Formats: sequence, C-alpha cells, structure tokens
Amino acid sequence: MSKQAKVAILGATGFTGEKLVEILLSHPGTEVTYLSSRTEVPVPYSKLFPRFLNKTDLKCETLDIEKCCKAADIIFLSLPHTVSMDFVPKLLAEKKKVIDLSADYRFKDTALYQKYYKLAHKDSKNLPKAVYGLPELFKKDIAKSSLIANPGCYPTSIILALFPLVKEGLVEKKIIIDSKSAITGAGRKAVIEYHYSNISNNLWAYKPFVHQHIPEVSEVLKLSTGTVIAPQFTPHVIGVEAGIYSTIYVTFTKSVTEEKISGIYSKYYKDCPFVRALPGLPRLKDVVGTNFCDIGFALDEKKENAVIASSIDNLVKGAAGQAVQNMNIILGLDETEGLL
Amino acid sequence: MSKQAKVAILGATGFTGEKLVEILLSHPGTEVTYLSSRTEVPVPYSKLFPRFLNKTDLKCETLDIEKCCKAADIIFLSLPHTVSMDFVPKLLAEKKKVIDLSADYRFKDTALYQKYYKLAHKDSKNLPKAVYGLPELFKKDIAKSSLIANPGCYPTSIILALFPLVKEGLVEKKIIIDSKSAITGAGRKAVIEYHYSNISNNLWAYKPFVHQHIPEVSEVLKLSTGTVIAPQFTPHVIGVEAGIYSTIYVTFTKSVTEEKISGIYSKYYKDCPFVRALPGLPRLKDVVGTNFCDIGFALDEKKENAVIASSIDNLVKGAAGQAVQNMNIILGLDETEGLL
Amino acid sequence: MSKQAKVAILGATGFTGEKLVEILLSHPGTEVTYLSSRTEVPVPYSKLFPRFLNKTDLKCETLDIEKCCKAADIIFLSLPHTVSMDFVPKLLAEKKKVIDLSADYRFKDTALYQKYYKLAHKDSKNLPKAVYGLPELFKKDIAKSSLIANPGCYPTSIILALFPLVKEGLVEKKIIIDSKSAITGAGRKAVIEYHYSNISNNLWAYKPFVHQHIPEVSEVLKLSTGTVIAPQFTPHVIGVEAGIYSTIYVTFTKSVTEEKISGIYSKYYKDCPFVRALPGLPRLKDVVGTNFCDIGFALDEKKENAVIASSIDNLVKGAAGQAVQNMNIILGLDETEGLL
Amino acid sequence: MSKQAKVAILGATGFTGEKLVEILLSHPGTEVTYLSSRTEVPVPYSKLFPRFLNKTDLKCETLDIEKCCKAADIIFLSLPHTVSMDFVPKLLAEKKKVIDLSADYRFKDTALYQKYYKLAHKDSKNLPKAVYGLPELFKKDIAKSSLIANPGCYPTSIILALFPLVKEGLVEKKIIIDSKSAITGAGRKAVIEYHYSNISNNLWAYKPFVHQHIPEVSEVLKLSTGTVIAPQFTPHVIGVEAGIYSTIYVTFTKSVTEEKISGIYSKYYKDCPFVRALPGLPRLKDVVGTNFCDIGFALDEKKENAVIASSIDNLVKGAAGQAVQNMNIILGLDETEGLL
Repeated sequence: MSKQAKVAILGATGFTGEKLVEILLSHPGTEVTYLSSRTEVPVPYSKLFPRFLNKTDLKCETLDIEKCCKAADIIFLSLPHTVSMDFVPKLLAEKKKVIDLSADYRFKDTALYQKYYKLAHKDSKNLPKAVYGLPELFKKDIAKSSLIANPGCYPTSIILALFPLVKEGLVEKKIIIDSKSAITGAGRKAVIEYHYSNISNNLWAYKPFVHQHIPEVSEVLKLSTGTVIAPQFTPHVIGVEAGIYSTIYVTFTKSVTEEKISGIYSKYYKDCPFVRALPGLPRLKDVVGTNFCDIGFALDEKKENAVIASSIDNLVKGAAGQAVQNMNIILGLDETEGLL
Repeated sequence: MSKQAKVAILGATGFTGEKLVEILLSHPGTEVTYLSSRTEVPVPYSKLFPRFLNKTDLKCETLDIEKCCKAADIIFLSLPHTVSMDFVPKLLAEKKKVIDLSADYRFKDTALYQKYYKLAHKDSKNLPKAVYGLPELFKKDIAKSSLIANPGCYPTSIILALFPLVKEGLVEKKIIIDSKSAITGAGRKAVIEYHYSNISNNLWAYKPFVHQHIPEVSEVLKLSTGTVIAPQFTPHVIGVEAGIYSTIYVTFTKSVTEEKISGIYSKYYKDCPFVRALPGLPRLKDVVGTNFCDIGFALDEKKENAVIASSIDNLVKGAAGQAVQNMNIILGLDETEGLL
Repeated sequence: MSKQAKVAILGATGFTGEKLVEILLSHPGTEVTYLSSRTEVPVPYSKLFPRFLNKTDLKCETLDIEKCCKAADIIFLSLPHTVSMDFVPKLLAEKKKVIDLSADYRFKDTALYQKYYKLAHKDSKNLPKAVYGLPELFKKDIAKSSLIANPGCYPTSIILALFPLVKEGLVEKKIIIDSKSAITGAGRKAVIEYHYSNISNNLWAYKPFVHQHIPEVSEVLKLSTGTVIAPQFTPHVIGVEAGIYSTIYVTFTKSVTEEKISGIYSKYYKDCPFVRALPGLPRLKDVVGTNFCDIGFALDEKKENAVIASSIDNLVKGAAGQAVQNMNIILGLDETEGLL
Repeated sequence: MSKQAKVAILGATGFTGEKLVEILLSHPGTEVTYLSSRTEVPVPYSKLFPRFLNKTDLKCETLDIEKCCKAADIIFLSLPHTVSMDFVPKLLAEKKKVIDLSADYRFKDTALYQKYYKLAHKDSKNLPKAVYGLPELFKKDIAKSSLIANPGCYPTSIILALFPLVKEGLVEKKIIIDSKSAITGAGRKAVIEYHYSNISNNLWAYKPFVHQHIPEVSEVLKLSTGTVIAPQFTPHVIGVEAGIYSTIYVTFTKSVTEEKISGIYSKYYKDCPFVRALPGLPRLKDVVGTNFCDIGFALDEKKENAVIASSIDNLVKGAAGQAVQNMNIILGLDETEGLL
C-alpha cells in the first residue's frame, strides 16, 4: 500500500461509529486522522473505549468542520438521522468524499423522507448526487460518487435477498418480511428499555407496517428493477448482541425449482465477495463480526411459495462494514480490503 | 384443600418433566408420589436436580407401570413421541387419568400421525377417547375425559391467536406464521448443536413448510371452527432460555377495525384466565415463567391485513403448565390452582 | 388462612420493589393494598409491568404516608438508601410494622453509616429498635420487632457462609471474599453502563476493599459472634440476569476435617429451611428464583484452608424474599409461607 | 511479505483449532495448507463451519503425518492432552517447527505431569527442548526453539499478573487466585453439562486446590523468578461466550505505593505489545476477540494488600492467539503480525 487515505469519523462514539473506528484502524489502506463526538474537551478515544488502548492515541473532540476537512479526505458521518444534512453541503463544497450512514440521503423523494423522519429535508440540492451505497447493486455509481447514502441495516438484509427475484419478475407484489435484530440497531442510548435485564432473554415485535425502512426497501427495489412491490414488514428486537435475520415470505408468479432459484442467486452475486448464497438456511452467528450477507431459501412442496432467509451483522454489513466496502470502491481498492 | 390428588410423572428428567415436578410440588391440590426416568438404580430427584433440595425427597426410578399405578391416580406422560402410546393403554385399563405431553394422541388422523412421526400408530383404539388439551377451546370435553393429548408448544401459541378470527370467518386461508422458540423445545439432549456456544447469540430458521406442528394446528382449527386454513409455518431457534413468540400474518376477508378485532378476542377469551388480549404487541419476557398466553395485533392502514403476535413460555403454557391446567379442570379445581 | 395482613410497598418500581409485588401478590397470607413510586398520576401497576396483567388491578401512586398508613399494617420500604429514614419515624409513630430494604437501619454505628453512605443519619432515635433481618441469626428478635433492617445482598451470602465458622472460633481473622453479582443489584437506572451490550458477556471487579457491604458484614458478625474479623471484599459484576455467588477463602486456626465442617453447618442451620448445606460446591442457577442460600466448601490437602462458596438470588434471599421471610416471622406464620 | 510460511493445524475442529484457522487464514505471513480432525472422509472445512465459506476451500481430513509434513513447515497441535506427545517426536524428526497447544510439554517435571494428567509421559527425550511459549517471559528462547509448549489459558492470565511482583520479591508466598472462565475452555464436547440451558446465567466453582493449571503456574514462576510461591486456585465457569478473568489476592512483604506497583508493571511490560497495564481494574469485554492481556490492581488503605485483576480471551491470548504470537517470533516477524 503506497499511500494511505486519511479518514475522519463524525459521531465516533455510537455503536456504528465505534465499529467504524475498529475496522478503519486495522485497514491497511487508511489512516484515521479525526474523530468527533459530543464531548466537553478532547478526550483520548481509548479512554472512552478502553479496548482501543495500544491501538490508537487519537482524541475524540467536538465537531469542528474546518479542522475535520484539514485532517481528512474521506468523511464518514455516523450522526443521527436529520443531523447529517447539516454538514454534508460544507463537506462536499470542500471536495471531500462523504459516506453518510444516516438516512438523510437515502430517499430521492423528499416527501417520503419527511413522512418517515418527521422533518423537511434541508439539502435537496445535493440529493441527486447521492448514490445508495449497496455495492452489490450500484457498484459502478458508487465508484464515481462523492456522496454515498449508506443503506439501513434492515434494508441491506432484505434488498439483497429480494433483488434477484424481483428483477427476474418471479415474485408476486405482496411480500411478507419478518426481521429480527439486535438492540444495537437502536443506537447507544441511556434508556431503561435497553437495560440488560430488559433485553436479555426478551423478544418483541415493534412498528409493524410503519417502520421507516420499508419505504427505503421499496424505493431501492423500484429504482433497481423497475418493479413496485408491496412488502409488509415487521421488525423484532431479540436478545442477541449482534445481527439481523430477515425471514421473507414470497409467492412465485409461476412454479419454479430449487435449481432455478439457486441459479439466479449465483448469477446475480457471482462477483459479489460478501454475499454467500447457501444451499440451506443461514444461521445468524455465521455472519456476526463479518461483512457477509448469507442468503438461503426453501420452497414448499408445490414450488409456489418460498421462505428466504438472509442474515447480516447489523453493525458491519448493515452499517460500518458496508461503509468501508463503499470507501474501498471509491478509492479503487479491492472491495474486500480490510474486511476479511 | 381437604384431599390431595396423587400424581406420577413419567419421564421426569426432561425439560418438560422437570417443569412438571416444579409446578406440581408447590401445587396445593396434589401430592407427587412417583417419578420415573431411565436410571440404573433409584436416585433422589434432588441429586439429579439440586435445585429441588429441601423441596422433595422423592426418588426417580426406572418406569414400573404397576408400581406407578399403585402410587398415583393421575399420570403425566412426559415421554418422547412414539413412546407414550406403549403405556397409555395399560394406564387407561387401570382407570387412571392420563395427561400425555407427547404428540401420540393429538391427531385423530393416524395417517397424518404416521406421515409426521414416521411410525404407525399403535393405539388407534384409544384415539377417539383423547381430548386435545387446550382448555380455552375444549374445556368441557377435558373435564369429562380420561385421556388428554396435551398440545404442542408452537400450536398452543398459534391456535390461541387464530381461533377467534377463523371461527368468525374473518381471515383468508393463506396465513403465514413465523415462530421463534427457545432451544428447550428440542428436549434435553447431549448434542454439539445445543452446546452453549452454538445457541447463545444465535438464531436460525428450520424445517420451513414441513414442521410436524403445522398439521396439528390445521386439524385442531378445522375441528373447532369447521374451516380449513392453509398456514405456512417457519419455526426459528433463538438464543433465549425460555419462550415462544409467534408472529402471524393474516389477510382479512373484509375490511375490519381495531375495535372489532379487540372485541372478538375479548369475547372469546373473557372466561379464560390465562389468555391476555393486549392493547399492543406482547413481549416475550412478560410470559416467561407463567402460564399466560399474551396476544396482541396491529392492522395496516387499509385495515385489510394484520400482524398478530402471541407469546407463551414454551415449557409452561406450551407444556407443563397447560398439563396442570388440564388436570385442574379434570379434578374440578379452579383452573388457575397452582399456576398463578 | 383466616385473615390476610394488609401490606404496602413503597418504591414498587425498582427491581426489589417489583420482586416484592410478585412474591406478595401470590402469598396466601397477605393482601397488597398500596404501592408507591415517583409517578405523576396514579397508574395501573400492570401498565408499568405488563407481566402483572390479570394478577393485580392496583395502581401505583406518589407516596402519601397518611394514605399508606390507612391502607396497610405492614410497610415494605424499597426506597433508595438515605431516603428510608425520612419516612420510618412517621410509620413507627403510626404503630406500623416496618421492613426497610435500604441500608438506613443496618448499622448501629452512625459514624460507620455516615462514612459509607455519605450522609449523617437522621433517625438515630429509632436505630436501637432496628433488628437486622437475617432470620438464621436473629429470628427471635425479628419476631418481636417493629423495625427490620433487611440485610444487603452480598452480606446475606457472606454472613450465612461465615457465621458458623467464626462463631466456633475456627477461622483466622484475615478472610478473602470474592463475590460475583448480577447487575440488578445496582438498581433500575437509565445509564449507559447498564445497557445490554455492556453487560452481556462482560465481567469486572469494582470497589475492592471499600464496598459499603463489608462493614455491614463485620458489624453483624461481631454482634453475633463477639469476634472481629478483617475481610477483604471484592465484588464483581457478571453478565447474568440474577444471583450472587460468593467465593470465600479462609484459613483455619487449627487443622479440621470435612466431617467437622459439614457437621457445624448442619448443626447451625438444621432449623433453617432456606439454608442448604451441600456436599459439594453450589451452582448459581440452583438458587435463582428461590429464597434458598446454598453453601458448600472444599478443603486443601492439609486441611488448613478452605474455599467456601455461597449462592443466593440477589433479589430474593438477597432482598425481597428475605423481607417476606421476616414478615412471616413477625406475623407468626410459617417462615416459608409464600416462599417455596 | 515476500514469502508465506506454510502451516498445518492438527485438531482443527475444536474451539482452539477453529480459532487458529480464523487467525491464520487472515494472517499476511502464512498460508494454511493442512487441516486434520477425526473425520471419515475429507470434508470441506467450510461445510463443518459455514462461517468460513468464501474464506477457505481447504478440506479437513484424518491425520496423516507424512502428508502433513509434506504440506507444512509449521505445525500447530490443537490435540487433546496426552495425545500430542504421540506425534511430536515424528514432527521434530522431520525438522518441523512445532507449536503444541496441549499440556504435554509444559512441565519439565514428568512426575508432576503424571500426577495431574494421569499418564506417564511418553516423550521425556524431547521435553528439554520445549520452551514455555509465554513471549512476555521467554521471547528469546522462543525465537530459537523448534518446540513450543503453548501455555494454558488460566496460567497465561495468572503468570502475567504475578511475574513482575514475584520477581521483585514483593509478595508473600500465600496467594489466592479466583478465576472465572467461559465454558469453551473445556473443549467442544457433546455433554449435557454444556447444554445452553445449563450454562446461560449460571456460574460455579470447580476443582478448588487441585486444578492442573496451578502446578503450571508454580513451575513457570519458579523457573522465571527463582521464587517458589504457594497459590490457592479456584476456577469458576461463568455463562459468558469468551474470556478469563483472574482476580488475584496478594499480601506485600513490605508497604508499597500505587506508583511503585504501576512502575513495576510498566517496566516489565514496556516492550510487550499485548500486555496493557491499566490505571484501574480491567473489564472482560475489552479483551474479548483480542490477543491482549489487561492487568489492573488496587491497594488497600494500608498499602499492605492488593487485588490484581487480569483478563484475556481464553481462546486468543489464552490459546490460539498466543500460539500465533509464538509463531511470529519464530519466523522473525513482528510479534503483532496478524493479531491486531
């Protein structure tokens, strides 16, 4: 590696920010040069997270855009939704490559954004420049872009499972998606609901029909396949430390075979190092700590219906790992650099 | 309580058997008099399970039907599927009340039994006497019966959620059921797959479309409502210590309202002390360690589809607790005796 | 049970308060009549804790001492340390039986209290009336008392393990205690440190040498045996849902035998239904959910040193269960009523 | 990295073997060329462990020493204790570098080996060649050796914590060690005791005074410091997925200060990249998944006694990571290669 890219992470103390720091510190092609968070005075990152002792001397400080721009060329925004768009215009103006892990640039349709994130979009000017950072679908566009809208965690697991089948016109519009996620997807917050004793051994469904990730799935699938589907989505919190497992129920438009479906997944993902099309159904733990998305399926006796299961680590392929995969593509590195 | 019923538990060292011992030892209406398991010589139950020290001096011994019949009037069979039917005829001949927690007497249709349990039924003579032990549907029959086929764990959570809606003719035939269960449902076995490190933080789908509990659901709903439904069922193992959570997707035959659906659940379960129809969606941990089944639902915007979620403790309402509830009914006790 | 005692729980929404509600609701000798917590308006307890649905219609309301005294004769105080002593004088003046689960009345020495709880004691007048509520040591005094200082969780596990050996003069003064506890001992608080992802699979030592429970152990052992010991105490937080496990290292003043030590435990605890002196070392899970304290030990080859291990459920025998055991004694009920 | 070392892993399907495969596959200086385990026919490793899909095409086969020697120059033995010594002589005869993760070459004293591992040593001839593979103490010897006895997991955490203080003559002989370990230390076995439901939320002490790792600690400390200590060791199983946490109680031979003790740790470990001397006490999760050993301590008020806490990942610094660290030293690579 002749030269290392200088990277900044804004919002470095959330779960996603911490995972970004972890991956980027050991990435051979990057040098982490700037970390921000809400903090009164600059504080060593390894004081906030002792597991980084002996790994970095970097300090975490209150965001100073000017300083950030001097320090880095690639900026990861691991900020809350509705906050990223306050900073992106300035970063783009400074010719930075921006990878935004919030939802702020995922929707082309600002009305949809406003409906689900309860705020009018403040930067519609830059929206057209944003590329949805799912490399398995949009790799070429990502390579040329300066603004990546890194996908949501649930949508990553769902879109990768559905895209080939929707693209081939094989599935009926009505699709049911039952996803299970670790609580880290909700962010690092001091609330009683996330207390150990409330999450351990617990499980519950929430926001059925109305979760903000479902329009994201629909819009991206429409954009990439031309087909409009009507998914019903029920996310669940489960008492695991990491991971998302999406169980997806589809009805075929015509009778299929195992071989046909397997063949389609193989064809679509043959050049995708992080998608593993399995002969059986995936297990969550096989992807935890990795950037893989494992996908498997089973057909009913009549070959008219399928269960498709898809699993990812919600903080890796569902957030930080995918962001780094996007960075690799932008930098012209091997897509898997620092991720295997 | 003037007089205590004498009860025996056959197969007392499985997860279900152990839970039966726990519940029945503190039940004011019963005296546990006989415990069997595969054991070379009689061994104190509290030596096998030290948590029962100071609670029982009973020994566990190799099954001796004659001895069992002398010791007890109510016999709980917590034996493996296909084993119970070897003993039930003798127990009924001795005029015992039998509560069988295996699947052996759950199907009226022996062909179905053979298809799913891979063995021809050996006691079709007694099958007609068997009552499916779901008190919320069959309480009157249970009260008069000498042979209770205690329901499967998944079916308990599913049937209780679906019965009122199917009975009212409100839902389309195609129903999708996504259930999540603790591993204890698979029995206490020394296999690598159930090793702590393989279950903790893990999650996977198994046996989609072909699990043996789905014909049980169909047969019981047909019997109780006259309607044939076509459920697609995908069970999952999740890394929790106890519980089943079933997320059920239905389409209504006509547009409904929240009030209507709430009203139906209230009407059907108003006399059922262990079913709690909730205003929102249930959380698994609220039923763990209890005999409750919590049921909640949500409608989509058009009021055409619903997600129904139902949760139970798989070893209590899903097995031992329900068995004791059945016993209470048979003995003419309050249905909740020893279970609240 | 001809007549039920009326009980109130002040501080009903902490972990200990919730466990008190659970135990007392199913206790045959009590009627729960009053629950308080910091709450803007009275709110159904089952709305705060849905697992109590169908079990109680009680509302939880802001503490009103007058109302409380009208409603109940036995008052459990599950309030923060330093808060209880604001209310105890009024309750005693109203002739109530008070069981205080805070540390406020555990020390006879107010200087010690002030040193460890950072506040001057406000009710030294009533301190002499307080009886330390460890029934295995002070049952007779408890029976006659109106003010019970319910023991701390760690001290319960430690004192029960050490008392017989110290009383017999068998152990050297220097004793090392390594305790492991579930995080619920720290109270239900919305802090990042107790977030699921920080506790699950984690473990750490804290407050070595200076934890406030060690003077409690010393004072109680001195009071009950006349001997002053010098324990070194290191508590640990471990990623489990419930329980305390104390591993205690003692050196004998003279060589002993297994039989002798076993005999001593048996002798001291023969009338104590909740202490189980085991032949081997205890396992935490055997006491979880129970009011038992399991104690076991092992000697070194020379019979000069021992490891003693003692385990309890921190919220039951370590708090709410023990409080109810004290209440049973005060009411003249069987000590185990509602606790087995 | 101009040339990659060829490595074989014998016993590749145990927990330690699996961790070796994980680390070595992504190690820039090695090529894994041979994997063995008990298997009827050669089977893809990624079929046994699907998480290695897309990461290796290697097959796992029944051990064939000749084939192994042709394939690799560095052989990791992740075999059961008492089995390694059957193969080591042949491997050394073939001029291989051998890193043995069993206990077979850890003791210089064969009588001690026989006492604790219940079998006469079969290869005393090669014992003198073996170097105890704790790089922080024996780096120079490791660099020149062909036979590394990779340390036990508990001893790694204990020796690193004690060595500087014993070497400086600061601590009394009597030392008490209370260690807590994940169950993976016991190996991947299909026994009921390791079933998820028996480990989750559980905790127990085992083998007090007699665990085989304590003579290992004593022998190594004697060898490295000339001082004989008399530790009392109590290991515990705790319900966590990974890690060992050792809490060690020492009495100083003279009064010390925090600064002095801190200074000693800093001095001894200043060139040791994997030992982190902390200002406070360590937390287990900060080392999980890493090759670090975190060490912290606290003194009592009189500065006469200390609690030292030391934590490692039992499968990394306690086994596979340390083995790779040893390999790095033998190969003349940076000690941290592939481990940060």
